[in-house]
Amino acid sequence: MKIILGIDPGTTILGFALLDATTSQGALLDMGVFRLNKIKEHSEKLKAIFEKTLELIELYQPQILSIEAPFYGKNPQSMLKLGRAQGVVIAAAMYRGLEVFEYSPRKIKQSITGNGNASKEQVSAMLQNMNLIKDNQHPFDATDALAVAVCHHLQNRITTIGKKYSGWDAFVSKNQERVIHKK
Amino acid sequence: MKIILGIDPGTTILGFALLDATTSQGALLDMGVFRLNKIKEHSEKLKAIFEKTLELIELYQPQILSIEAPFYGKNPQSMLKLGRAQGVVIAAAMYRGLEVFEYSPRKIKQSITGNGNASKEQVSAMLQNMNLIKDNQHPFDATDALAVAVCHHLQNRITTIGKKYSGWDAFVSKNQERVIHKK
Repeated sequence: MKIILGIDPGTTILGFALLDATTSQGALLDMGVFRLNKIKEHSEKLKAIFEKTLELIELYQPQILSIEAPFYGKNPQSMLKLGRAQGVVIAAAMYRGLEVFEYSPRKIKQSITGNGNASKEQVSAMLQNMNLIKDNQHPFDATDALAVAVCHHLQNRITTIGKKYSGWDAFVSKNQERVIHKK
Repeated sequence: MKIILGIDPGTTILGFALLDATTSQGALLDMGVFRLNKIKEHSEKLKAIFEKTLELIELYQPQILSIEAPFYGKNPQSMLKLGRAQGVVIAAAMYRGLEVFEYSPRKIKQSITGNGNASKEQVSAMLQNMNLIKDNQHPFDATDALAVAVCHHLQNRITTIGKKYSGWDAFVSKNQERVIHKK
């Protein structure tokens, strides 16, 4: 089973989603949020994020971590804290041998809704249309995490088709003159 | 043996130092820099930082990680990258059960030179005066890493004296009337 772990790592709420990417459609295994607002010490938050990430990896054995890439325009202090949270998630994933992929917010919205400027509501609605979630009662931190996992799956699905094409079909399409067509 | 790992985690050069903090004076075990500028992919850099940190921990078995706290005024993008690098180092240390402490650049300079605005040259010269390094031929990324380890040691030395005092000596000093003094 091919499983993608999507994480939206904030320093107050960490959103997570696990997508079974075995089928082209994909299926949701689990999603949720992990609240960090009651933990005051920043280093304790990092520890909690690290442990939660390892826990999710142990439980679902994903092969891939898909994470939202840096977005800009926030103040340097909050970017450093966000970076630390992301670094901890990435380290936990690398330690367990997962491949790590990152996508920009624009790319994620584009791949799911076709519009790079889509709202969180529109992304959530599209995930519903794709039958991955049943309603719009999920927190955006969780749907954002699902969105980044789905984004990787959509990218990778294309790559897989591409790879398949480079086998016998590619040989045939590139070497038409060498193929004997039965009439 | 009590060992402190000091790390100055940049995204192009990672400085490290290992301080034997068994004696009040302290002794340098190892210091150096780990160059990341040849690694182009940011995620590969993070992986290298993670592995290097684990390697230093395996080799020297430190109980403590001392790391420089956020400094501000850089642009959000470089702060996010710096944060990720720090997050990876912190996660590796937490994973191996080290205690993590952080100090502001001002605090580090203050504790070593007595001046919170000291230059890197002044910090390096003071580390030489303290007989921790023999000359000023070390890169600043390495002396900065040593400085943050020494800063923790200086803080902790005070705490240790405090703790010792809260044992029998403290009991004696607080309960003079209950102690039978031999004459």
